[in-house]
Amino acid sequence: MSEESQESQELGITESKSHRPGEWYAEVVRKAGLADYAPMGGFIVTKPRGYALWEAIQDALDGWFAETGVDNVYFPMFIPESFLEREKEIVEGFDPEVAWVTQGGHDELEERLAVRPTSESIIAPFMADWVRSHRDLPMRLNQWCSVVRWEATETKPFFRTKEFLWQEGHTAHADDAGAWAEVWTRLGQYERVYEDVLAIPVLRGKKPEHDKFPGADTTTTVEALMPDGRSVQGGTSHHLGQSFAEAFDISFAGEDEEEQTAYTTSWGLSWRALGALIMTHSDDQGLVLPPTVAPTQIAIVPIWQEDTQEEVLEYSAAIADELEEAGFRVELDDRDERNPGFKFNEHELNGVPLRLEIGPYEVEDEEVTLVHRPDKEEGVEGREGIVDAVDDHLDRIYDKLYDAAAERLDDNVREAHAPEDIMGTLGRHGGYVKTPWCGDEACEEAIKEKMAAEIVLQPLEAEGGETAGEVEKPESEECGVCGDHAEEVAYFARTY
Amino acid sequence: MSEESQESQELGITESKSHRPGEWYAEVVRKAGLADYAPMGGFIVTKPRGYALWEAIQDALDGWFAETGVDNVYFPMFIPESFLEREKEIVEGFDPEVAWVTQGGHDELEERLAVRPTSESIIAPFMADWVRSHRDLPMRLNQWCSVVRWEATETKPFFRTKEFLWQEGHTAHADDAGAWAEVWTRLGQYERVYEDVLAIPVLRGKKPEHDKFPGADTTTTVEALMPDGRSVQGGTSHHLGQSFAEAFDISFAGEDEEEQTAYTTSWGLSWRALGALIMTHSDDQGLVLPPTVAPTQIAIVPIWQEDTQEEVLEYSAAIADELEEAGFRVELDDRDERNPGFKFNEHELNGVPLRLEIGPYEVEDEEVTLVHRPDKEEGVEGREGIVDAVDDHLDRIYDKLYDAAAERLDDNVREAHAPEDIMGTLGRHGGYVKTPWCGDEACEEAIKEKMAAEIVLQPLEAEGGETAGEVEKPESEECGVCGDHAEEVAYFARTY
Repeated sequence: MSEESQESQELGITESKSHRPGEWYAEVVRKAGLADYAPMGGFIVTKPRGYALWEAIQDALDGWFAETGVDNVYFPMFIPESFLEREKEIVEGFDPEVAWVTQGGHDELEERLAVRPTSESIIAPFMADWVRSHRDLPMRLNQWCSVVRWEATETKPFFRTKEFLWQEGHTAHADDAGAWAEVWTRLGQYERVYEDVLAIPVLRGKKPEHDKFPGADTTTTVEALMPDGRSVQGGTSHHLGQSFAEAFDISFAGEDEEEQTAYTTSWGLSWRALGALIMTHSDDQGLVLPPTVAPTQIAIVPIWQEDTQEEVLEYSAAIADELEEAGFRVELDDRDERNPGFKFNEHELNGVPLRLEIGPYEVEDEEVTLVHRPDKEEGVEGREGIVDAVDDHLDRIYDKLYDAAAERLDDNVREAHAPEDIMGTLGRHGGYVKTPWCGDEACEEAIKEKMAAEIVLQPLEAEGGETAGEVEKPESEECGVCGDHAEEVAYFARTY
Repeated sequence: MSEESQESQELGITESKSHRPGEWYAEVVRKAGLADYAPMGGFIVTKPRGYALWEAIQDALDGWFAETGVDNVYFPMFIPESFLEREKEIVEGFDPEVAWVTQGGHDELEERLAVRPTSESIIAPFMADWVRSHRDLPMRLNQWCSVVRWEATETKPFFRTKEFLWQEGHTAHADDAGAWAEVWTRLGQYERVYEDVLAIPVLRGKKPEHDKFPGADTTTTVEALMPDGRSVQGGTSHHLGQSFAEAFDISFAGEDEEEQTAYTTSWGLSWRALGALIMTHSDDQGLVLPPTVAPTQIAIVPIWQEDTQEEVLEYSAAIADELEEAGFRVELDDRDERNPGFKFNEHELNGVPLRLEIGPYEVEDEEVTLVHRPDKEEGVEGREGIVDAVDDHLDRIYDKLYDAAAERLDDNVREAHAPEDIMGTLGRHGGYVKTPWCGDEACEEAIKEKMAAEIVLQPLEAEGGETAGEVEKPESEECGVCGDHAEEVAYFARTY
């Protein structure tokens, strides 16, 4: 096999998204150069193209955080065991999956140190120290870091890894209303990351009582539907009430000089967002990315014969310069050792949203041929207004991706009113099944036991308002599982 | 004591930089809100103002890295013990100070995992996999992360902590010249961070053979002189030769299809740069920052009586808006509960470079009073051209800080030609003592035993050129310590 045909084969995705989504996903991640498996199970190495996607998410979120009063900080990656134990539910929730440092250099440590699984237990005591008066509130801290949770599951890059990158926000407020407003601000920003940056529509809601973050009063979530019918928890924002403030003594002198206990929140979005991004848009040719996050937005592929090489390259380079100057991320692919077909495949695999093909005819007619990823829609635009035209095409590509995902979501929220109906619908279609629910965890268990599906969210009564997270009331008042009186609505789905 | 006077006292720095630099440093770090001590010895919590300084350094360096072909990545924070052992010198160099994870959840791990002290041992094997042909070279990877080195020393925020933030770059090249060019590019960027961002002049050089990074052929360094006469290693760039490439099998098919071994480099700059920044410019009133990195560049303090409040605040707010629009980081300090004197002290403590004082006279005369940090130089500028005037004042503040540090450096490189002379000069003045050196580690030991000073660098023959790191030849050829034949020059200094 020639070097070229061997490499062509390496470029091809051999698995099928519709038939074997798990294998297909793993192949796209590897072949598009996003991540590799580390030697220890559960860990991955994030390669340049994958890390650039994470940076795109960071840039967007971090900017919005700064605009809304959040300060970045950095806390130690280790938490002494005695600190972890101060909030009972945190230690019960996380203890089974903590990685422990027990040796430093050649010595055994006197106290084991947890590699942070989340940082409430180390941040809260400092907040207690820093917050003295109502004037110090609200206090809003955030850190971008990695955390470790020792879960014994199969590695799935970005979806399931023992170490993962995320941001964790931690805030303290003078009153309950302030904490609720915070919870909705952050949930809204997570929704915006999905909707406006990743081209993924999401559902907002809260988690059932039994599935909250350890120690939280309320956990809110944005959920994204994957093409294989499963739901991904896209980001969570927790109202922690006063449990952490009481455990760690975060109190302050109010305006009346009386000592009061603060309310706290925490909220996090992890690189699971990258998993959702890859899974949602990509196809059997490889990665598909919205132009908002694509490290390369435009690949220019000049097509020449020996006698046309100079004019084609010159014309292409001028367009590349003009687009770069206008702020686009452009790659002029003038490699001599590759033919255009190979280049097309490679840029498709790598998820470049827009390809410009430029041959002697384009030069002669002062035009450019443009090809969209993923649907190969082709257009021809005049050389003159190329910057505006490209901008327009990129917007259309974003809209196509978003619209396809939105249509899928719309089509995949179904109602059911009996256990067989819930399970039948989930089995046939996947997606979300909406049902009245009595609120008893046993009803979720009854479904979970028979098929790996659970309650992923309860829709909110008034979305995004400064409410206290009241959930939607059902139209019928019979629990879809046990038939008892139901005052809530639940969405069942299979998850990652 | 009233609340105000109690808080005023908290604002004051009580230690003296010249008499007790260590205690003074710790007090500035804490009172200016840069960092706090974590509950575990050797760890700190980086607070918003401290972290913002680190972000300023990141922004500058990361931009330059991107312009010079570096891709950001993220590797696991844990390294299996067997990987660490593959490069003999790395394991010998770092084993005594590795923190080990031995338990995951409730299970003992089969193999201990090192919390990364540096990542050559986990990055090199992946480079070996990713590099196949000369077309894949040079490969330049960088990550921003934290590392852990379990050193049993007293905690000194940013200077000596068991966990610290840094960036580590790792590159592979087809030939030795390519690796050398890389070493100088990165050392040059580190120099630029100090000179152009932190207002600290540095010396460039290489470390003596016996003080190289474990496994390196050559370690180059930038060194900064602190006001107490000690030298800080500001960033290091290592030519690793072929030792890592051989240990981890990083080889490639050359243009002639022959398999060849790569050359690698690594380079890192840590938050010690923040330590140098704080130590260099700050004074007995608190933090002093160059405008380049100051989170707040300009504090506007309106000074009013009841009858002038409205006009003064309106005038001040308009100026704040105009400066913000021009891109400056401005704080309009219109707090009602604080008097101007308190505000002046607070902004001085926090290192705000420029203060604008605006009272009724300024409003009437359409002027602004400006006060520099740290020397209290005062100026008056017209309201009209305030943006340009502020820009000019900030530049002058930067230059003042830089010039003072540069003068100190110039004055503190002295020559000596005998052991008593070396030690006497170091004892009397601190700074650098330049001496001919035979190259024998024993000569360094002889000095080190008597006073805590060491060879911090050897000046390069041709600075910044694409040389292979040849060091300056001495004028006299007698080693300043033992009197033997000397072909090299060494700089002795006390260090952190």
